[in-house]
Amino acid sequence: MTVADSKVVKVGICGYGTVGSGTLSLLHGNAREITRKTGVRFEVCHVASRSLQVDISGVARCGTDPFAVAADPEVDVLVETMGGFDPAYELVRQALENGKHVVTANKALIAERGMPLIELAESKGLILAYESAVAGGIPIIKALREGLAANRIDWLAGIINGTGNFILTEMMEKQREFADVLIEAQALGYAEADPTFDVEGIDAAHKLTIMAAIAFGGSLDFDATYTEGIGAVTPEDIAYAKELGYHIKHLGIARLDSGKVQTRVHPTLISEKQLLANVHGVGNAVLVHGHAVGNTLYNGPGAGAEATASSVVADLIDIGRLRDHSTPAVPTLGFAKQKSDLRPVSIEDIETEYYLRITAQDIVGVMADVSTELERHGIGIDALIQKESDGKHVPIVILTDRARESELNDALRAIEALDSVTEPVMRIRVENFGE
Amino acid sequence: MTVADSKVVKVGICGYGTVGSGTLSLLHGNAREITRKTGVRFEVCHVASRSLQVDISGVARCGTDPFAVAADPEVDVLVETMGGFDPAYELVRQALENGKHVVTANKALIAERGMPLIELAESKGLILAYESAVAGGIPIIKALREGLAANRIDWLAGIINGTGNFILTEMMEKQREFADVLIEAQALGYAEADPTFDVEGIDAAHKLTIMAAIAFGGSLDFDATYTEGIGAVTPEDIAYAKELGYHIKHLGIARLDSGKVQTRVHPTLISEKQLLANVHGVGNAVLVHGHAVGNTLYNGPGAGAEATASSVVADLIDIGRLRDHSTPAVPTLGFAKQKSDLRPVSIEDIETEYYLRITAQDIVGVMADVSTELERHGIGIDALIQKESDGKHVPIVILTDRARESELNDALRAIEALDSVTEPVMRIRVENFGE
Repeated sequence: MTVADSKVVKVGICGYGTVGSGTLSLLHGNAREITRKTGVRFEVCHVASRSLQVDISGVARCGTDPFAVAADPEVDVLVETMGGFDPAYELVRQALENGKHVVTANKALIAERGMPLIELAESKGLILAYESAVAGGIPIIKALREGLAANRIDWLAGIINGTGNFILTEMMEKQREFADVLIEAQALGYAEADPTFDVEGIDAAHKLTIMAAIAFGGSLDFDATYTEGIGAVTPEDIAYAKELGYHIKHLGIARLDSGKVQTRVHPTLISEKQLLANVHGVGNAVLVHGHAVGNTLYNGPGAGAEATASSVVADLIDIGRLRDHSTPAVPTLGFAKQKSDLRPVSIEDIETEYYLRITAQDIVGVMADVSTELERHGIGIDALIQKESDGKHVPIVILTDRARESELNDALRAIEALDSVTEPVMRIRVENFGE
Repeated sequence: MTVADSKVVKVGICGYGTVGSGTLSLLHGNAREITRKTGVRFEVCHVASRSLQVDISGVARCGTDPFAVAADPEVDVLVETMGGFDPAYELVRQALENGKHVVTANKALIAERGMPLIELAESKGLILAYESAVAGGIPIIKALREGLAANRIDWLAGIINGTGNFILTEMMEKQREFADVLIEAQALGYAEADPTFDVEGIDAAHKLTIMAAIAFGGSLDFDATYTEGIGAVTPEDIAYAKELGYHIKHLGIARLDSGKVQTRVHPTLISEKQLLANVHGVGNAVLVHGHAVGNTLYNGPGAGAEATASSVVADLIDIGRLRDHSTPAVPTLGFAKQKSDLRPVSIEDIETEYYLRITAQDIVGVMADVSTELERHGIGIDALIQKESDGKHVPIVILTDRARESELNDALRAIEALDSVTEPVMRIRVENFGE
């Protein structure tokens, strides 16, 4: 195939930071191989960057106005890598209105304001692609929408924030405190100056919201996603969990149960025998359970210029491989007809097992009191560690049997009211994902 | 969407064993969800089974002649789940000639006789799909052809035979002998009565051949794939490897290096820190290195009726999602224009590290002799374990530095010629896959 045989797809890039520049350099650097694969030549014809201090050789137009890209009649596909809602939302909207396909890496935009954009894209027969918005370079959106399409997805669980996983890994491997590792993560560039999005689980909640919609065929419902950060996890919790055969990971979990959807991000104990428990450092991984296939796991880099660009360009290639004038084959959220009857489950109504760390005065009878309170609320004890006292306090670590969270909360309130219990109880959810 | 809105795709299934019947039951059992996802209703209208003793309710036609399915004007897609070359090759050819898309789970057919069938399918604008032929329920073909399409794939390595991995896992976890575990695997139904295909690596070589072609853009070249079984691996080797921080896995490895392609299946030492090393039991996993994304790993069940059917039906869904009269968007082997200049590398010409187990008479000087021979052939020693003698013999375990296999072979011949060395040297290749 010569260059003349190739179909040309013209790409405009809005936002020339890590991902935007990574996309351009991947398209340029691997142009020959991509054309061999697709029969398509991708030509970046217009870049909008906040700063004009970028040197972009071989690109026809550079400017500071992203809306000029959305209005550029030459552009076939607009790549949005600016992040945030404003002006990203309006930019994507205008690009679609102008008949352009859109590829975005913007998880917040899709998770929180995606529905009207998706409806607009579908009404115009355009692709709004977002593989890079979830789990960076891992092609998890494609796996969920296409590779596993034969399955009813029962649940999925993912390590979908590299910063948080780096922090928990360091805490585990080096017995370090959260605050300490966070500073290092910031110095290494893994965490933002304001780390809230990462360590509080908001970033993970965005990704989880998107995956849950695709997995179960519902709408994007970010507001229903329960979010709990990792700031309260201590090196002691990590050590006790390990003693019990578990690792603590910050997971995004989505589960469909009798037509009700749980979406929740929180620290979680998972068996050290699970592959997912052994994904360390800044890596991401998503474990998916399909009713036919069982468990499949997808692991790789969740961030970084090149890894994220790998997914942006994969989306461009999907678009390039479309025949002219054909409508997209795969619905944006994976379902041609979405389910309207899925209801969210409140965190109070979930049922799972729990890790509890209770700090008690070292007095006779405290174990009996705690057991009584758990029993009174119908909560069984699966495992227990009582450590030596430091002279004044004794930590009691309990793994409970399966319990409803509202019951557990009642029991915890009763336990915290005991005279012998001196601090709030640390509670971490435990999940078993089968083989 | 009502049933009346749905496009109907009529499916014929040839071969009604595990995978064929699993496909029918998945299509029937999950019909509503699949139609919701795709807007397509899949109707199995014709089944050919060797035995007519099957009760297939709701299927219009059942017979014993697969060619009647290939000739059935009502059938849009033929699913081939018979295995083997004869009559599968001719059946697929006739189905394509008759304008039908084909979905096959037959790895031997694609790997060894796929090229003319692929050419025929492409010349007719038809899909010949084979996701289920590689790694069962893991959507690895889709990941390689689409999800990672932006990348130059540098190498991939996979545990792609569940039987072999089950045997090695049992040997490791329970210090059992190969022959012993093989009998158990046969009793459990994990291994065939004739286990050659699995334990000698031929099954893995078929899958590797297919992945290598897609990854690098060359032809299917089964004959160039080097194959070595796991029958010679002993529990001692597994224990020594563990002592050195490695697990032994039966890997299929494909690597592109300066336009030359290595494809090889053999027992391999990989660091226990690698996620791939921790894939145990009958599971499969493929680790892929893309130049942009880095390492991504895909793990799941490599066999089983439902898992394999999950991939067969995913292929059917891809076909169902095609617009009428549109040609397939993704080339059968992932490249619109394949590379004709890729050359295979002989196993003698690979370079890697090696694990050596040398059984020597317990006499002074044997270590010096062995070291001298390695040094004489330019092979460095990275680690060494010398175990206590059993009175007469002493095992010496060596990890070498990187060396060319032909040099290593020369060194091994010289070592085996030493008077003090009493048995053939056990040699297992070592691979480092980075983070």
